[in-house]
Amino acid sequence: MDNEALMMTIAVLGGTGKEGKGLAYRWAKAGYQVLIGSRATEKAILAAAEIIELLDGAGSVVGMSNPEAAAQANIVVLTVPYAAHRDTLESVKDQMKGKLFIDVTVPLVPPKVTKVQMPAAGSAAQEAMQILGEEAEVVAAFQNISHEHLLGNGDVACDVLVTGTSRNARQEALKLVEAAGLTGWDAGPIENSVVVEGLTSVLININKQYGSTHAGIKITGAKNK
Amino acid sequence: MDNEALMMTIAVLGGTGKEGKGLAYRWAKAGYQVLIGSRATEKAILAAAEIIELLDGAGSVVGMSNPEAAAQANIVVLTVPYAAHRDTLESVKDQMKGKLFIDVTVPLVPPKVTKVQMPAAGSAAQEAMQILGEEAEVVAAFQNISHEHLLGNGDVACDVLVTGTSRNARQEALKLVEAAGLTGWDAGPIENSVVVEGLTSVLININKQYGSTHAGIKITGAKNK
Repeated sequence: MDNEALMMTIAVLGGTGKEGKGLAYRWAKAGYQVLIGSRATEKAILAAAEIIELLDGAGSVVGMSNPEAAAQANIVVLTVPYAAHRDTLESVKDQMKGKLFIDVTVPLVPPKVTKVQMPAAGSAAQEAMQILGEEAEVVAAFQNISHEHLLGNGDVACDVLVTGTSRNARQEALKLVEAAGLTGWDAGPIENSVVVEGLTSVLININKQYGSTHAGIKITGAKNK
Repeated sequence: MDNEALMMTIAVLGGTGKEGKGLAYRWAKAGYQVLIGSRATEKAILAAAEIIELLDGAGSVVGMSNPEAAAQANIVVLTVPYAAHRDTLESVKDQMKGKLFIDVTVPLVPPKVTKVQMPAAGSAAQEAMQILGEEAEVVAAFQNISHEHLLGNGDVACDVLVTGTSRNARQEALKLVEAAGLTGWDAGPIENSVVVEGLTSVLININKQYGSTHAGIKITGAKNK
């Protein structure tokens, strides 16, 4: 638990889902204050209690509505199914000024989830940028990590590619990747989020074709420390 | 050298470049007949001679113009800079009917090569599909492999993601990946080529940010055999 973590509050919107809960667990464990956001406050409170139990009480996690969570956080993370992406962003837009926003959303279009099908903006993260305007920094990350990995404490055999609207925003997000016990890489400008979001469809296709359940990627030939 | 290789002729258009030469070397070594294509026949002949020398004479590699190479091959591979992509495809279009076409082109837009900037078709491979029409099967592959790796005989620490217009086309291309001594994965429909082509910009960015020269990717959590 370092000093930086103690001063930072992370809101996980849609934090009642598996991916959100997994990230919240890892950050709370690293000493961050975590706010679980949901459209339904009672569900957020329940999810927060579950995470506290997994941590044996050693962590700060509370549940509330999405706008309340966004308002009280320094960093806002969105982990909702793509169908809820726009509505959730609109609901917290006024709370986002000057904050770091991390979009975990993968714009899958069921039933063809093995086919990359990006929104008109280019990617979910670029759509978020359009909705939030220029006052929030937008980062895309964590789209390729299986939630099953996050709720355990073991090593995760999948790296995190971080794209974002500025180098500074990517560096801030990379600290959260490391705090979650994962290996992260600066993957360049926000326009590159199409690669990271689309990679999820590629990995789903690999799972389908090769009978795996947790295909991931590792960067080779470079050192991130 | 298996029987399938002996019956197959591969044209490598733009095979005078480093990436094309590297692939040609590996396939000729595996027993395939390789035709090096170029806009300038004399350059193609020179490149073929270089590869034969690397193989100590043990391989079938000849040089000719791009349309001659395309006409006499079963499989046509394109390894040109993006600026030559459309013109080269137009020049061989009439020779492509019923063939397997493998696009290695990365649509980089200098000077911002760390930023994903796809053509209007969605990717270089989808642009190729539009130019060639429906009579050729189109696959996208090999965009992320450093040419330095291909001209050596060692293991390459970068997997090959193969997207394409049909499962059969991807399977055919995966045989060539294996013949080149590389590990390949069926990465899904041709729409997913944006991920594979765009990944090159992500890897260039990683090289730039982390001082590496050959960043690549490996798929984890799945077995391809």
